[in-house]
Amino acid sequence: MGNDALVIAPIAGLLGLAFSLYLAYTTLKNSPGTAKMADISRAIQTGASTFLKREYRVIGLVALLFAPILALVLNPYVMVTFFVGVLCSALSGVIGMTIATRTNSRTTYAARDGLHRALNVAFSGGAVMGMAVLSLGTLGISGTYLFFEKIGGTPDPLSVITGYSIGASFIAIFIRIGGGIFTKAADMGADLVGKVEFGIPEDDPRNAAVIADQVGDNVGDVAGMGADLNQSFTDTLISSLLLGAGAHGIGGAVLGAKSLVFPLLVVANGILASTLGILIIKLLSSKSRIKVDNILRAGMLSSGVISSAGVFLIAKFYMGDTGLFFAVVSGLLTGILVGLNTEYYTYKKPIRLIVESTETGPATTIISGLAVGLESTVLSMTVLALGLIIAHHFAGLYGIALAGIGMLSILGLNISTDAFGPIADNAGGIAQMSGQDPHIREVTDKLDAVGNTTAAMGKAFAASATAAAALSLLTAYSEAAQVGVLDIRDVRVMGGLLIGGVLPALFSSIVIRSVSQAAQLMVTEVRRQFKEIPGLLEGKARPDYDRCVDIATRGALGHLVQPCLLAIGIPFVIVFVLGKEALAGLLAGCIVTGIFLALFMANAGGAWDNAKKLIEAGQMGGKGSLAHKASVIGDTVGDPLKDTAGPALDILVQLVATVSLAFAPLFLRILG
Amino acid sequence: MGNDALVIAPIAGLLGLAFSLYLAYTTLKNSPGTAKMADISRAIQTGASTFLKREYRVIGLVALLFAPILALVLNPYVMVTFFVGVLCSALSGVIGMTIATRTNSRTTYAARDGLHRALNVAFSGGAVMGMAVLSLGTLGISGTYLFFEKIGGTPDPLSVITGYSIGASFIAIFIRIGGGIFTKAADMGADLVGKVEFGIPEDDPRNAAVIADQVGDNVGDVAGMGADLNQSFTDTLISSLLLGAGAHGIGGAVLGAKSLVFPLLVVANGILASTLGILIIKLLSSKSRIKVDNILRAGMLSSGVISSAGVFLIAKFYMGDTGLFFAVVSGLLTGILVGLNTEYYTYKKPIRLIVESTETGPATTIISGLAVGLESTVLSMTVLALGLIIAHHFAGLYGIALAGIGMLSILGLNISTDAFGPIADNAGGIAQMSGQDPHIREVTDKLDAVGNTTAAMGKAFAASATAAAALSLLTAYSEAAQVGVLDIRDVRVMGGLLIGGVLPALFSSIVIRSVSQAAQLMVTEVRRQFKEIPGLLEGKARPDYDRCVDIATRGALGHLVQPCLLAIGIPFVIVFVLGKEALAGLLAGCIVTGIFLALFMANAGGAWDNAKKLIEAGQMGGKGSLAHKASVIGDTVGDPLKDTAGPALDILVQLVATVSLAFAPLFLRILG
Repeated sequence: MGNDALVIAPIAGLLGLAFSLYLAYTTLKNSPGTAKMADISRAIQTGASTFLKREYRVIGLVALLFAPILALVLNPYVMVTFFVGVLCSALSGVIGMTIATRTNSRTTYAARDGLHRALNVAFSGGAVMGMAVLSLGTLGISGTYLFFEKIGGTPDPLSVITGYSIGASFIAIFIRIGGGIFTKAADMGADLVGKVEFGIPEDDPRNAAVIADQVGDNVGDVAGMGADLNQSFTDTLISSLLLGAGAHGIGGAVLGAKSLVFPLLVVANGILASTLGILIIKLLSSKSRIKVDNILRAGMLSSGVISSAGVFLIAKFYMGDTGLFFAVVSGLLTGILVGLNTEYYTYKKPIRLIVESTETGPATTIISGLAVGLESTVLSMTVLALGLIIAHHFAGLYGIALAGIGMLSILGLNISTDAFGPIADNAGGIAQMSGQDPHIREVTDKLDAVGNTTAAMGKAFAASATAAAALSLLTAYSEAAQVGVLDIRDVRVMGGLLIGGVLPALFSSIVIRSVSQAAQLMVTEVRRQFKEIPGLLEGKARPDYDRCVDIATRGALGHLVQPCLLAIGIPFVIVFVLGKEALAGLLAGCIVTGIFLALFMANAGGAWDNAKKLIEAGQMGGKGSLAHKASVIGDTVGDPLKDTAGPALDILVQLVATVSLAFAPLFLRILG
Repeated sequence: MGNDALVIAPIAGLLGLAFSLYLAYTTLKNSPGTAKMADISRAIQTGASTFLKREYRVIGLVALLFAPILALVLNPYVMVTFFVGVLCSALSGVIGMTIATRTNSRTTYAARDGLHRALNVAFSGGAVMGMAVLSLGTLGISGTYLFFEKIGGTPDPLSVITGYSIGASFIAIFIRIGGGIFTKAADMGADLVGKVEFGIPEDDPRNAAVIADQVGDNVGDVAGMGADLNQSFTDTLISSLLLGAGAHGIGGAVLGAKSLVFPLLVVANGILASTLGILIIKLLSSKSRIKVDNILRAGMLSSGVISSAGVFLIAKFYMGDTGLFFAVVSGLLTGILVGLNTEYYTYKKPIRLIVESTETGPATTIISGLAVGLESTVLSMTVLALGLIIAHHFAGLYGIALAGIGMLSILGLNISTDAFGPIADNAGGIAQMSGQDPHIREVTDKLDAVGNTTAAMGKAFAASATAAAALSLLTAYSEAAQVGVLDIRDVRVMGGLLIGGVLPALFSSIVIRSVSQAAQLMVTEVRRQFKEIPGLLEGKARPDYDRCVDIATRGALGHLVQPCLLAIGIPFVIVFVLGKEALAGLLAGCIVTGIFLALFMANAGGAWDNAKKLIEAGQMGGKGSLAHKASVIGDTVGDPLKDTAGPALDILVQLVATVSLAFAPLFLRILG
């Protein structure tokens, strides 16, 4: 191949990483706040890094056991790229978490100078992670590809780079599930005892689970979300490289080597667009006249426009095929529309239905939330299907992969705006715990609310990109395993489709149970401390925060391995019992119900959450009313759905697809 | 064709119908009970027949508007078979309901002589419907086929018989949704005001919605369930005729005309097996030593054995291909295993999880029920997939249709045991309202509990048969519309798969909302009567039952047309926007999530219901405890899922498939 333009990607990756480090430096230059703020922040830092260390130890161990299998049944090069994938992904997680847990008290302190100052600090902290994920992913994948191309000889770079994909999925599934269980066990444990049994407010320092809850925001919402999008990015990019190999342009001409370069140029261009978008937001946040959500919107919009303009230029002048541009942009537009649909169902008219149904108690609240959640998936999936069909129209199967790239073309901004929500949430907790003036909490609450909207957007992008990436991987798998026609009337394909259709259900069920069990332990511990520590409820004694962090940590780590083994093991079982066609069917079924359930859980959970917030803002009798109680129950039901099981489904779908693809040569060797 | 054996089917149908009428005669010979019992029963009869009349008027109107379309865009013969399908299905509904609403007080009266006497009466009443559905279906389909074969000339009997299928689906979707909304609106309305607000017991005559609730048991659980299984039977039989046309036997030899006769002989044999099974149960119910559930099990088991033996003889000696026997039996075994799995998740260990989680309130009760419901689908769908693969192994695509026939081979028994549950439920209500000795209520409660188990079995059989029938219809559609390969990597197929995957979600959401709205109106009315009728709460005045029946009726009829139009209209939209391949994909996606959601909703609802019953029997502090309150909330959430949305999904899947098949010639003509 040897196309010179290929080196642009790793260079862009390095520059993006440098920008990320620069952002980290400027963020840390802000004051960490008063001694008390810094003290609480330190406790959160310690809890988070202890959890991450223990989690990485488990991951490392499993990775070390798993890697030799890759080397033995596939080849040693795949093992090498696997470790590169693991390292790049783990590193972006460490960078993101380290800065996020140090930005929280800095945001609290900055909130004294107003909303815009707080936004600037919180957003910069989140952007560190955004740029780190985007840059390390681009650098890792393009670097790996170039390395194997340069050394030449036996391994075709495209055939070994699937190892990188498995590595990234590996980290993602552990971090997403682990973080998800941690955060919801702590959150539910804190609420069920603190709010419900003792009637003390959220983030009250007397609640032993309160630090664990704060740590959870970081390990779940920051690190978990980052890992999720990191994997989507990795899988999308790698599948576009694989499909690019034999891709045809609009005129039917084989695009050849350039079709491999195109996706890498698009993501390099995305690094530039994200950098500019971040700088625009930072610049605008000094103008206090402009509303905070408009600032974020302006940043995302300009990033999208810059990205699209760049893609157009690359498609027209380098590739000589504007169809590729339309494929990428149809992906971007699909992501935006799915995001807007999510916003509609979780913030607008539909949640009125939930708010009104709180009047007749928790049962009707739950029922109406389920109805809203179910309905919310319809437009999203339809738009997704149409977007993929349009992308396919412009560039065939390659176009589907490109649509995925398009969905992630403003990834840097997406992650940045996602990550600042939990930072603002943490900042609010620190304000409460350090006894700041209530107006500081008001500022961080406003930021948190804005962050919720952008986070819902991010989830929609992640689910859409998952669909595009998984479909591309399905195609790549069937080529690698040399399966012929995959007719849905073929009973093996249909059998796979039915079994794949319930795989996300099994996975969700396991994850939801794990959260319940861990939360139960947390409830017992918080109750015990209130009973056994004299003077705790009166505020005269300090609870043992560390024990709660430890319980959440052990709860999360203890429930990690089972769902991961399921995701990794199921392709082998299916392929050796029912054949290669059944595995393709399983992937398709898993995509359909996986994306459906992910959207359903995210949106139902979001809708309950926001219905509760509307009531807390005074509707239906406000806080303390029976309607409020019903809405709190709705929110609690939604918690493990929207923050643990739902987002983990994206990763399940991609991990199953990645494992199938990576081991396709083995299946081919054994089954012929 | 002209195979003489074909006439066996309509003869068996006529004999079955005669047996059904004989059962009706013996049932009605029992005493209708005391004057007060008969009085209440009459109120239920009036309510049910008024509802059915008004519902049939709506159906008739829509059918009259729809039929000319069939005649115009297809041909007049299809319109004729459509009306035959409508009439046969409507008639079996009328027969079943008429007898069920007259058996209730007879069962109450018989309960004075003990459990076994009550079983005999209630079961005979249910069996009328079981035999009517089975016999009218067999008679209608085989009669229509023979008629068009005899008149010869233009219309190929196989190409016009799809009209019958649409007719049956038409009736089914209206009756299932209408009955489902009616019963749950009345049930939730009665409970939310009576039990929760005024603390009066279930079935208390002071509650204005109590008669509506009783009527609901009949129009929802008797007529709705019968319509559901009637449609499954129709679609399965017709699809097996269609696939039989070109079927190959084990040796690859074309089975020819005989493969059309085989399914008809199997169902004729099923009429015999059901008749014997019913007689065995009636005989055993005079032996008071034998436990009631063992009596039912013995009847079902002998029916299954007789049916299988008959199928074996037909396959071996008439068809000369025992592979066909194995295909049928793999279906029967699949149905049984799915049923046992349902029983496990809704009655055994898993509901312990829900019972224990009631301790921490409604939120954890709901969460654990969701987890149980999700997990319960996994084994069922896997068994279903394997069963279809095995059936396919023995007889190809024809085998899948035969597996469906196998699942319904003990249909007569399934419906009979399903229908006697609501009859017993009604009998209990009448005992309560007429102030009988509490031991009579105990007898009917025991019968009701047994009925719940068999009803869960019935739902599992219905969902399994839906999958088999819909897959066969999908194959028949793609042949009729002359679509070539349906590769899941084809973006049109995949797009259809994604959109089809959310169709059941949209449908469920609409149905759940309708129940909520109707229930809300009911709540207002019951509250109003307690407030405005002087002396009502003290038992000195009689509530206005009719108004509540009327509210439930209007609530149900007002929400019928939208979901039905959706099911009928969506194939046209998809096929003309995205093409014939996309419609095939849509069917497949609809099957996957439709069956998944149907099983999930039925099982989660059943598990919550039974968890509540365990607590009411004394666990976790028994009635009145906080745990009990949480379990009531769980049960209420499950109500619209398990009794309205879930069962309607079976019909949605089949209606979409039937419409696609019937209009395939039109699609072919327009799109080529």
